[in-house]
Amino acid sequence: MKTVSTSKVHGGVQGVYSHASDSCACDMTFAVFVPPQASNEPLPVLWYLSGLTCTHANVMDKGEYRRMAAELGLMIVCPDTSPRGETVPDEKDNWQFGSGAGFYVDATEAPYAKNYRMYSYITEELPALIAANFPADIERQGIFGHSMGGHGALTIALKNPERFRSCSAFAPIAQPSTAGWSRPALEKYLGADEANWRAYDATLLIEDGNRFPELLVDQGTADGFLDEGLRPWLLEDACREASMALTLRMQEGYDHSYNFISTFMDDHLKWHAQRLR
Amino acid sequence: MKTVSTSKVHGGVQGVYSHASDSCACDMTFAVFVPPQASNEPLPVLWYLSGLTCTHANVMDKGEYRRMAAELGLMIVCPDTSPRGETVPDEKDNWQFGSGAGFYVDATEAPYAKNYRMYSYITEELPALIAANFPADIERQGIFGHSMGGHGALTIALKNPERFRSCSAFAPIAQPSTAGWSRPALEKYLGADEANWRAYDATLLIEDGNRFPELLVDQGTADGFLDEGLRPWLLEDACREASMALTLRMQEGYDHSYNFISTFMDDHLKWHAQRLR
Repeated sequence: MKTVSTSKVHGGVQGVYSHASDSCACDMTFAVFVPPQASNEPLPVLWYLSGLTCTHANVMDKGEYRRMAAELGLMIVCPDTSPRGETVPDEKDNWQFGSGAGFYVDATEAPYAKNYRMYSYITEELPALIAANFPADIERQGIFGHSMGGHGALTIALKNPERFRSCSAFAPIAQPSTAGWSRPALEKYLGADEANWRAYDATLLIEDGNRFPELLVDQGTADGFLDEGLRPWLLEDACREASMALTLRMQEGYDHSYNFISTFMDDHLKWHAQRLR
Repeated sequence: MKTVSTSKVHGGVQGVYSHASDSCACDMTFAVFVPPQASNEPLPVLWYLSGLTCTHANVMDKGEYRRMAAELGLMIVCPDTSPRGETVPDEKDNWQFGSGAGFYVDATEAPYAKNYRMYSYITEELPALIAANFPADIERQGIFGHSMGGHGALTIALKNPERFRSCSAFAPIAQPSTAGWSRPALEKYLGADEANWRAYDATLLIEDGNRFPELLVDQGTADGFLDEGLRPWLLEDACREASMALTLRMQEGYDHSYNFISTFMDDHLKWHAQRLR
């Protein structure tokens, strides 16, 4: 692991690191905020998964998570959203596929299966690296994210309820296997048989019996992707059907940007801290 | 005035606007955050002046000012740092001069005098535009900024104490007329006669009799520009000499980045709100 940069902020340290990833067969970059409590105790780890087109840096720059994370004593890990590099297959003019659009799945189809293994990267490789290199109490993990990363957080929590104590999402893609902006990616990563997509679809995972104790979801009503891409009511239906606890808050007038995320960031951090500390 | 974008955030609206500037003889872009209190009352206006290389966008993205500004009912205006455009003279490979480096002066030398009039732009043209287009109580203005923008805030407050009720700075350039990174710009904008630079140098303005009731300055001890470029002790000396109230806080371990700014943003907003509300 290489340290790219560190900077003191809100009493803690915001770092950026890179390493050669086995899962993704390329160098990967990620951000970690270590709050000031790190000198006293191992800290709970909260994973933030970003949306389409983002790197580790967008939420680090615009997410406004550090003040409250420092207050609550949460370590925040922000991974990249896909493998990257000259040897990684990509479609440069397609923002919904390839670089910046890993969708947190393990691809099975050539030529993507070699690199596009973000599910394994986020659930196995990066947690091991964090546990080895940071003052983390890896027994206490929570996960959240935005849009494609909200989808990632929901699916990863539903598939690993024993690993995560808390899960929330900002404007998540509720059902990627039936949304126009995610279907082409799922087909290229996972193949034409849609049965294989169900393992990476939050609502279908719930339909198939996966459970998580409780979820918090915020969604802006002025979000341009609401009706076609995000559709939180599908998650609401699935949770109701499964008697799963979901707090879905429709936030009047908010869009899909980091202005929305930063507004409700404190609420989400407190939600996780209540379950992690 | 054209609206470039608006987005709801922390209950208020973050907007970006552009207009044809007379002072700068080019189109100028600026950001305004209008807090939720705008529907009830005209609001005090707090000016944030950014540093070298920045546009209006850097502090908007990374400054983390909206949560507290919404709580305190402050309108925050973030101008650009220089004129820009194909017709504006520039030195593209010089980050300390031209685009992004207006230094908040009115240039007197050709070919810069036509466009590089940031002092007039910030003190006259933009306030009139804000007063005409936003729910501003223009009788209550405060000003702050970072680095070159901290220099701008200090000099503008010292030259206009009747216009501003409050002034603070993050890591300001205390004495630009003797610092290596600002002398070449002052010479090109204002000419070789250094007597003409004194009107844009905070410490020399104080030496020449300008006064402001009280100043708050934060400065990181790990700031790479501290010893050569910033030198807050020169401001401290000038204020002591002049019996002017200065709260200078050396912040252990903080650098020159927005991580430093965002950490102490709440303190500065409260400082201004106490004097503006």
